[in-house]
Amino acid sequence: MIEKDWIADLATKWYRLQEALRRMDADGCLLSVDVNLYYMTGRIYGGYFYMPAEGKPWLFVRRPVIEPEIDGDDLYNIVQIRKPEDIPAILNKEGLELPAHLLLEADELTYSDYMRLVKAFEPKKTGNATALMRTLREIKTPHEIELFRISATQHAKTYAQIHSCYQPGMTDLEFQFAIEAIMRRNGSHGLFRAFGANMDIFMGSILTGDNAETPSPFDFALGGGGMDASCPLGANGTELKPGMAVMVDMAGNYTAYMTDMTRVFSVGDLTDLAYKAHENSLLIQTEIENIARPGTPCSELYDIAWQLTKDAELEAYFMGTKQQAKFVGHGIGIQINELPVLTPRSKEVLEPGMVFALEPKYVIPGTGAVGIENSFLVTDKGLEKLTIFEENIIKLD
Amino acid sequence: MIEKDWIADLATKWYRLQEALRRMDADGCLLSVDVNLYYMTGRIYGGYFYMPAEGKPWLFVRRPVIEPEIDGDDLYNIVQIRKPEDIPAILNKEGLELPAHLLLEADELTYSDYMRLVKAFEPKKTGNATALMRTLREIKTPHEIELFRISATQHAKTYAQIHSCYQPGMTDLEFQFAIEAIMRRNGSHGLFRAFGANMDIFMGSILTGDNAETPSPFDFALGGGGMDASCPLGANGTELKPGMAVMVDMAGNYTAYMTDMTRVFSVGDLTDLAYKAHENSLLIQTEIENIARPGTPCSELYDIAWQLTKDAELEAYFMGTKQQAKFVGHGIGIQINELPVLTPRSKEVLEPGMVFALEPKYVIPGTGAVGIENSFLVTDKGLEKLTIFEENIIKLD
Repeated sequence: MIEKDWIADLATKWYRLQEALRRMDADGCLLSVDVNLYYMTGRIYGGYFYMPAEGKPWLFVRRPVIEPEIDGDDLYNIVQIRKPEDIPAILNKEGLELPAHLLLEADELTYSDYMRLVKAFEPKKTGNATALMRTLREIKTPHEIELFRISATQHAKTYAQIHSCYQPGMTDLEFQFAIEAIMRRNGSHGLFRAFGANMDIFMGSILTGDNAETPSPFDFALGGGGMDASCPLGANGTELKPGMAVMVDMAGNYTAYMTDMTRVFSVGDLTDLAYKAHENSLLIQTEIENIARPGTPCSELYDIAWQLTKDAELEAYFMGTKQQAKFVGHGIGIQINELPVLTPRSKEVLEPGMVFALEPKYVIPGTGAVGIENSFLVTDKGLEKLTIFEENIIKLD
Repeated sequence: MIEKDWIADLATKWYRLQEALRRMDADGCLLSVDVNLYYMTGRIYGGYFYMPAEGKPWLFVRRPVIEPEIDGDDLYNIVQIRKPEDIPAILNKEGLELPAHLLLEADELTYSDYMRLVKAFEPKKTGNATALMRTLREIKTPHEIELFRISATQHAKTYAQIHSCYQPGMTDLEFQFAIEAIMRRNGSHGLFRAFGANMDIFMGSILTGDNAETPSPFDFALGGGGMDASCPLGANGTELKPGMAVMVDMAGNYTAYMTDMTRVFSVGDLTDLAYKAHENSLLIQTEIENIARPGTPCSELYDIAWQLTKDAELEAYFMGTKQQAKFVGHGIGIQINELPVLTPRSKEVLEPGMVFALEPKYVIPGTGAVGIENSFLVTDKGLEKLTIFEENIIKLD
């Protein structure tokens, strides 16, 4: 992207934020969490991004020393600081009032960091910048959608090479390591960002056989034992054997905007029940593609999945067995779990510019996990599938 | 480790925590952050670990359903809960008073999560469980030291294979991907845990040539541009060329307890200044090994490094050029940046059971980063080096 487009993209996001601040009667918003800094400035630095309800935004930078961009230096201010307590005096010196109603990242900042900012700014009232930013980030800009498209292309390219990673007698971990190597060669950044406490995950998840039944302590759709008690998620050393389904849900982190995509592989043939459940996942996806458009309630997408699951009498396997996830999809972006969430209780409706992963999955005891996951862009007309690759179960041997 | 040893290790940690709580006149401590849960229970789950100043600890588990261990079920209580607000009633029902002085993870919990717990428990007074836990975690148990030893062995095994990853004309990223593949085959967990906001890193850092001068926005010793603005750290696509130093500081995450280890490789020969600086790093390490023992102030270790740097007139290159890190080492553990920190202002002294990384490094413009990093255990007698591998600059070609 050339410099001017980059500034234009940021300016769009700044405009939306200021509009929202004024709507909320907030005087300003102070951001410092990595994903919000990246969203608002296109970079990550040690410091703060301050947006007043009126006027230019401020980049307060602890480190490194950063230079203003050539084309955008009239649009924002950059000031180097030593500590956040320096900020109020700088704003005062510019004749700006300190925000009486200040939004802070309440669901992301630590308690100590939050209280430190409250002490430094002494606002009359605080509000939750995390909640606001997650809502703003829900509707993607054209530039963000471009980045999703790059991720989707590389994601599919990697998946097309997965078959070549298989060797008889290997474990799920050996299979995963081979896929990770391909991911990196195809440009994977490695880093896999998630929202929320303790959401530890490394490069994605592969679930083979009954490991797919192991419940997750996290908010991920499925679990798995993992390779160590210190990270209980995904592949656990299961040997790939005939009759097993191998669900590959590896990260689409080829740009800062991650696509999410799951495909199922098999060693030999699976049971009729497994194929039936997989077909049902594809049916759910098709039905949702047919019905979803701007205005469709997110809860309706879950309801479709659940109704088709009941029709096929697959309730006991839907989104897990011992523990069943109560969602069938989720927004994606800089973090893997953005808004909206496709749950029965979701109050949101689809809007153009949303990007979400739809992942109807079933866990079949004795076989493993089957189902599908793709990333979709909501357009004016309906859904556009971003992650294009074979959707049937792919035999490894 | 057999079951009994595992319980014994946990019991040691619980005893230390209760002792500390009583010393602080605190009535209880509630933990829920991944690293603290793992430290206190040997596992990660969705939920809370509650330690009263007297009596058995409680595991309050949201998910998954977990069963008590066979040998330890008389030592602690496990209760499944739906939400943290359930906990006070459960304690009351058992005839336990709610803690008037409660420690919460103030530097780790989000503001919202912290306030939610305060509302649920209504303590008269709160204190900082993060600060306490970081101090307790600073002195490692025999079991933790065992895990460090496993990591160190695998770390060194990987480093012995790095030479084979080199191919003329490759970039630092291609070199890194090849090393990552070896790490995984040698048992690397992948996950790299750090303490503090925005400390994003993936599997470690490789700095080649002048990329080593790029300042970090983070608290890491050195920086690097990284492969994308969304993660500005480490390798940036620099082609490995004659005269360049390649500093390899890849993760020792082969158990939950990470060792930290840096070695320098070169393409062709480096300048005399680079070799001189590297030798000085080794000299600093030797001097510190000679002097350090229980009771040695951590600030003294930094002072030795700085004095030897001045003696060699290398001040301009020490721990960076454009931005210089003001420490020469740091504690390691479940997170890569535990206590103590070896800074000029450190108030701590060495104690048996501490494990820290010592990393005197220099950045030489036009060449890259040189120096050494090893992980050391503090014993009754002095330092024991855990990460044993060739320390001279290793020629790749």
